Amino acid sequence: MVKKMVLTMGAMILMFPAMAFADAPSTAMLNTGLNSLWVMLAAILVILMQGGFILLEAGSTRMKNAGHVAGKTIFTFGLGSLIYWAVGYGIAFGEDGNLLFGLGKFFYNPPILYGENAGLSDSVFFIFQLAFATISLSIAWGGFAERAKLSSYLIFTVVFVGVIYPVVAHWIWGGGWLAEDGAQDFAGSTVVHLSGAVAALAATILLKPRIGKFNKDGSSNQILGHNQVYTALAVLFLWVGWFGFNAGSTVAIETGFFGYVAFNTQIAAAAGAVAAMLISWALLGKSDITTMLNGGLAGLVAITASCAFVEPWAAVVIGLIAGVLVFFSQKFFEKLRIDDPIFALSVHGAAGVWGTLANGFFATPELAATAGVGKAGLFYGGGWGQLLVQLESVVVAGVFVFIVSFAVLYVIKKAIGFRVTEEQELIGLDLSEHGAYGYPEQMKKAQQNLNA
Amino acid sequence: MVKKMVLTMGAMILMFPAMAFADAPSTAMLNTGLNSLWVMLAAILVILMQGGFILLEAGSTRMKNAGHVAGKTIFTFGLGSLIYWAVGYGIAFGEDGNLLFGLGKFFYNPPILYGENAGLSDSVFFIFQLAFATISLSIAWGGFAERAKLSSYLIFTVVFVGVIYPVVAHWIWGGGWLAEDGAQDFAGSTVVHLSGAVAALAATILLKPRIGKFNKDGSSNQILGHNQVYTALAVLFLWVGWFGFNAGSTVAIETGFFGYVAFNTQIAAAAGAVAAMLISWALLGKSDITTMLNGGLAGLVAITASCAFVEPWAAVVIGLIAGVLVFFSQKFFEKLRIDDPIFALSVHGAAGVWGTLANGFFATPELAATAGVGKAGLFYGGGWGQLLVQLESVVVAGVFVFIVSFAVLYVIKKAIGFRVTEEQELIGLDLSEHGAYGYPEQMKKAQQNLNA
Amino acid sequence: MVKKMVLTMGAMILMFPAMAFADAPSTAMLNTGLNSLWVMLAAILVILMQGGFILLEAGSTRMKNAGHVAGKTIFTFGLGSLIYWAVGYGIAFGEDGNLLFGLGKFFYNPPILYGENAGLSDSVFFIFQLAFATISLSIAWGGFAERAKLSSYLIFTVVFVGVIYPVVAHWIWGGGWLAEDGAQDFAGSTVVHLSGAVAALAATILLKPRIGKFNKDGSSNQILGHNQVYTALAVLFLWVGWFGFNAGSTVAIETGFFGYVAFNTQIAAAAGAVAAMLISWALLGKSDITTMLNGGLAGLVAITASCAFVEPWAAVVIGLIAGVLVFFSQKFFEKLRIDDPIFALSVHGAAGVWGTLANGFFATPELAATAGVGKAGLFYGGGWGQLLVQLESVVVAGVFVFIVSFAVLYVIKKAIGFRVTEEQELIGLDLSEHGAYGYPEQMKKAQQNLNA
Repeated sequence: MVKKMVLTMGAMILMFPAMAFADAPSTAMLNTGLNSLWVMLAAILVILMQGGFILLEAGSTRMKNAGHVAGKTIFTFGLGSLIYWAVGYGIAFGEDGNLLFGLGKFFYNPPILYGENAGLSDSVFFIFQLAFATISLSIAWGGFAERAKLSSYLIFTVVFVGVIYPVVAHWIWGGGWLAEDGAQDFAGSTVVHLSGAVAALAATILLKPRIGKFNKDGSSNQILGHNQVYTALAVLFLWVGWFGFNAGSTVAIETGFFGYVAFNTQIAAAAGAVAAMLISWALLGKSDITTMLNGGLAGLVAITASCAFVEPWAAVVIGLIAGVLVFFSQKFFEKLRIDDPIFALSVHGAAGVWGTLANGFFATPELAATAGVGKAGLFYGGGWGQLLVQLESVVVAGVFVFIVSFAVLYVIKKAIGFRVTEEQELIGLDLSEHGAYGYPEQMKKAQQNLNA
Repeated sequence: MVKKMVLTMGAMILMFPAMAFADAPSTAMLNTGLNSLWVMLAAILVILMQGGFILLEAGSTRMKNAGHVAGKTIFTFGLGSLIYWAVGYGIAFGEDGNLLFGLGKFFYNPPILYGENAGLSDSVFFIFQLAFATISLSIAWGGFAERAKLSSYLIFTVVFVGVIYPVVAHWIWGGGWLAEDGAQDFAGSTVVHLSGAVAALAATILLKPRIGKFNKDGSSNQILGHNQVYTALAVLFLWVGWFGFNAGSTVAIETGFFGYVAFNTQIAAAAGAVAAMLISWALLGKSDITTMLNGGLAGLVAITASCAFVEPWAAVVIGLIAGVLVFFSQKFFEKLRIDDPIFALSVHGAAGVWGTLANGFFATPELAATAGVGKAGLFYGGGWGQLLVQLESVVVAGVFVFIVSFAVLYVIKKAIGFRVTEEQELIGLDLSEHGAYGYPEQMKKAQQNLNA
Repeated sequence: MVKKMVLTMGAMILMFPAMAFADAPSTAMLNTGLNSLWVMLAAILVILMQGGFILLEAGSTRMKNAGHVAGKTIFTFGLGSLIYWAVGYGIAFGEDGNLLFGLGKFFYNPPILYGENAGLSDSVFFIFQLAFATISLSIAWGGFAERAKLSSYLIFTVVFVGVIYPVVAHWIWGGGWLAEDGAQDFAGSTVVHLSGAVAALAATILLKPRIGKFNKDGSSNQILGHNQVYTALAVLFLWVGWFGFNAGSTVAIETGFFGYVAFNTQIAAAAGAVAAMLISWALLGKSDITTMLNGGLAGLVAITASCAFVEPWAAVVIGLIAGVLVFFSQKFFEKLRIDDPIFALSVHGAAGVWGTLANGFFATPELAATAGVGKAGLFYGGGWGQLLVQLESVVVAGVFVFIVSFAVLYVIKKAIGFRVTEEQELIGLDLSEHGAYGYPEQMKKAQQNLNA
C-alpha cells in the first residue's frame, strides 16, 4: 500500500529502484546498502559536529565576536565543501597519483547507483570524507579566534581544504607513503586533529596574542568565554558526533566491529572527562568547567587513532592520560605565552599526539593482526617498531602542516594583512567584519551602561 | 547472550520478532527493513529541523518575544501532529479519493508489522510525511512573527495541516492532478517550502509590518534578530536535517541512489552559502551574517526539487543562483514594504520557485528517464515542456495556498482578531501571550536600566 | 573503487571485514547487522537527550548557576559511563546473578565481532543500556538543582549508576523478580523515569527548598528559569531522542514493529503538549511556556511503558491525560512546599506512574499476546491482573529507590554536607563550585548595575 504512494512521491523518480530490482535484492546488494546507510549516518553525525564547533568557539570567546565566530563556521563549511569537491578529494583519494598525492576525481562526479559488490556507495564515502576535511578546518580556526580578518578565513579555507589536509590524508589513508610505512591512525588523531591543531598553532604565532591576554611582566589574564551552556552543549554534540567519526570509520557493518569501536570511544571519552575534573579539583581546589569539558574532548581525540586497536582497559587508560595531559598542556601553552582561546592546541594537538603514540603502546596483536597488516604495540610484544612509525607520522604530518600553513598565512599577513586593527579588535569582529552585533540588544545595553 | 536479556527487556514483547522469524529473514524482508530504517532516520532528521526553526525564529527576532517564538513551535508541532494523524494524512495519501484530494486513513491506524514485500513500513512512512507537513507549517510562522495572537497559531495549524498542505501534497505526491501532468518536485521545493512561504506571505500582508519596521517617508529600519549564534546553529541543524529531507525522499536504500541525492544536496547548499556571502561582500563592502546564513538555506531549498534529477555541476549552479537570488529577494520585499522577519519569503519562497523551475532546465534524460516517467529539462534536450509543467505547479500551488490561507486568516482577523494590540506588541509576546518573559533575568535588568 | 581507499583508511584495519567475508554475508548476518545498526542509532539518540537535559536544566534555572548546571552534566555523564561499565551493567544484566541482582560482566569486555546468529551486537547493546542509565541519572539531578555541592554529584553518581538503577533494571528487564511477576515496562516509564524522579524527590526533601522559593506564610514564589529558548529546544531534543528510547527498545528491525512504536510515541507526545497547553489556557487565562513544554515531555514519559502495547487511540488518550496530569502535579508539589526546579517530579514521576499504570488499562490482547508472555489490560478483557502487577512494580521500584537514595544522601549530608552555604547559594554555584561565572560578561554587568 505504501508502495503506490511512494512511487508518486518525488514525481515518480522512485519507480526506478523498483524497476531495477523487480526481485528482492541479493545479499551482496543488501550488504552494500547496509554499509552505505551506516556511513551516511556517520557522515551526518560528523557534520553535526560543526554545530559543536559553533557552540564551542562562540561560547569560549566574547560576546562582541559571537556572531562572527558562529556565522563564519557556516560560510567556511560551505566554501570548504566546494573546494573539497573540486580539488581536495582528488588529491586525497584520486587513483592516478603517487605516494605523495592523489590525482583524479576533481570536480567529483560520482556514479548514480552502486554496483552489487561495491561494498559502499561512492557518493556516501565522499560526503564522509568531506565531513572529516571540514572538521579539521574548524579545528584550525581555534588559532584565528577573535582577531583574524574575515578575508584570511576565505583564503586559508581554500589552501587548507584544497591542499594541506588532503595531502596528509593521502599519506596515511589514501595509500601514500606513511600508509606504506605502516602508520596506524584509525579515524584521524593525526590526519584530522593534529593537522587542524598545527594549523591553529601557525596562525596563533603569526597573529600574536589577543589584546589583554598577556601582561608586560610575563603574567597572563584569563579571558573567559561568554557562555558555558554553549560549551557544555558543544561537548555533548561533539561526543555524539564522534560515534560517526570513529565507529563510522569502519565503513562497514558486516562483522559488528563498529560496535566495538563505539564502545571504546565511549569509555575513553568518559575517562578523559573524569580525569580532567579530578586533577583540576585536586590541584586547584576547584574544578573549572572548561577543564572538565576539555577532558572529555581530549579523551575523544586521543582514542581516535586507537579505538580499533585496543582493549577496553587500554581505552580507559588512554582517556585518563588524555584528561590529565590536557590540564597540564593548557598551562604549558599559557607559560609559553601562546594564546589559544578555544584550547585547540591542547585538546586536538597534545591529545592528538598522545593518541597516535598510544597506538604504538597499546595495539593488541589480535586486533592488529586480524587486520592483516596492522602491528601490535610495545606493551603487547610488538617491540618499538610500531611506536616509531607512529612517532614518524606525528612528526612528519606536524612539520608538513606547520610549514605550509605558516608560509601561506605569512604571505597573507604581508600581502593583505592577517589581523584586524586594534580598534576593530576592541569593538569586536561582529561590527568590524559584518557591520552588526551578533547580540545587538545585549551589546547595546552594555554600551549604554558604559556611557552612563 | 544478548538475546536472552533482550527478550526480557520491555516485558517480553521482544520475543515476538524472534517467534515470527525463527529462521533468518528473507532478502525481501531485509530489504523492507533496510528501507524502513533509512526512512525512520530521515524522519528523525526532518523532525530535528524543528530545532533549527526554534533557533532560527528566536534568533531572528527580539528578546521580548523569544520564549513565545520558541515555545509555540513545540505546541504547534504537537497540534499539527494530531491534526495530520486525524485528517491531513488521509487527504494527502488516502486511497479512496480523486485527483483533487485523498480520502481514507483518517485517525490513521497503521499495521503493526509489515508484510515481507511491503518495501517500507507504513508507520514510518506516516511519520516521515508528518514531519514534512509540520516543517511546512513552521515555515509559515515566519509571516506571523512578533505580532500575531497565540489563538491564531492554534486555528491556522488546524487548517493548514488539516487541509491546505495535504491538498497540495496530494496533487503532486499523492497521485493528484499535478502528478498526472508530470510535475517533478522530488522532496518538496513547492509542496513544502513554497506552500509554507505563501502562507507566510498571506499572513504578513494581513498583519501589516511590525511597529517601527517602516517609516512614513517610505524608508525602512533594520530590526535585528537578537542572537546570531542561534541562527548559525539553526542553519547547521537545518542543513543536517536536509539529508533526511532530500535523500530520505528516495524512501529506499536498495540502489544507492540516496547517496547521490545527498551528494547533490551538500554541494548545492555549499554553493548557496558561498554565493550569498560573496555577493553581499562585493555589493555592500561587508558580508552580514544573516545573508551568509540565508544563502546556505536558499541553496538547500532550491536543490530540494531537483536533487534527484540533476548532475553535480548543475547542483552547484542551482545553489549559486539561489544564493544570489536570496540576497536580491530580501531587498525586493523590503522595497515592497513587506515585513519578513525570518526571511521566509526569500529563503523558502523565492528559492522554492527557483528550485522548482530549475528542474525544468537541468533535469537530465538519464536521471529522468531511468525514472520511467520523468522528463528532461530544457538544457538537456527536453524542450520547453517540462519547464512549463514546473511553472504550472508553482503557479497553481502558490495561488491555491495563498487564496485559502488569506481567506482563513481574514476570517480570523475579523472574528477574533489576528494581531495583538500595540501595547502588547511593545511589551512583547512573552508577557502578553504567556505571562512571563522568556529571559526573565535579562529583561528585568533591561527594564531597570530603562527606569533608571 | 571505493573499496581500495576504504582498505587503506584506518591503517588497513578495514581489510578484516573483507577478509572475514570474502563472500556476501548470510541473511542471518545481515539481520544481525541491521538490528545492530538500528540500536546504535537509538543509543546515539538517547545520548543526544543529554543535550536536552543540559538545555532543560540550564534554561529552567538562574544565570548564576548556568555553567555549573550545564557542565556537571558532561562530568556526571562521563563518570556514570565508567561506573556503569565497571559495575552497573553487570548488576543489571550479568547472567550469574539471581532474581534480585545480576553478577558478571564487570569491567565489561565485549566480543570484538558478533556471531552470525547473535541477533544484536553486544557492544551496541551495552552502549544502549549505558545511555538509559545515565538518562535516569540526569533526571535525578532535577532534585539537586541550584543548591547541592559538587561533591554530592560525584558520590551519588557512583551509587545511583553503580547500584540503585541497575537493581531496578535487573528486576524488570534483566530477568529479575518483577519480570517474573509479569511487569510490563517497555522502555522504562518505571525503570528510567520513575527511578530518576524518586531519587530527585529524596534529594529535594533532604536539601530543602531554595532560598526564596517559599514564604513564611506558606505562599510560594516563582523562580523563573532564565532562558525559555533553551527549554523549548531541550524539549525538541528530548522528543527526537525518544524515538531511540522507545522505538529503539524493540532492539530489532525485522518485523517493522519499531515503526509502530515510534508512531505511538509521536502522537502521545503531541497529545501531551496540546492537553497541557489547553488546560493551562482554560484555567489560568494564559498558557505559560513551561507548562506547554512539560506537557509534551509528560506525554513522552507516559507512553514509554505502553508504546508497544496499545493502539493509536489509546496512545493519544495516554498522552492527553499525561498533559493534564502534569499541570495539576506541578501545583500539587508546590502546595506540598516541595521545591522541584526542573519539574522532574511531575514530568518523570507523576507521568511515569501514570504511564506504567496505563499499560494495565490499555494493553491489547493482540499486542500483548503476540509477545507470548504479555497480558492484556483492564479495558481489553484482561481483568485487574495486569493493572495490579503494574501497580506493584511502581510501588516496589519507587519505595526501593527512595529508601536507598534517601539513605545515601542522608549520609552525605551528615558526613560532608549536601547543600552549599547560604552565601554560596546567593552568589551562585558557578562561582562557589567552579570559580567562574558561566556567563561572565553578563553577570559582571548585572553586578555593576547592582553596585551602581
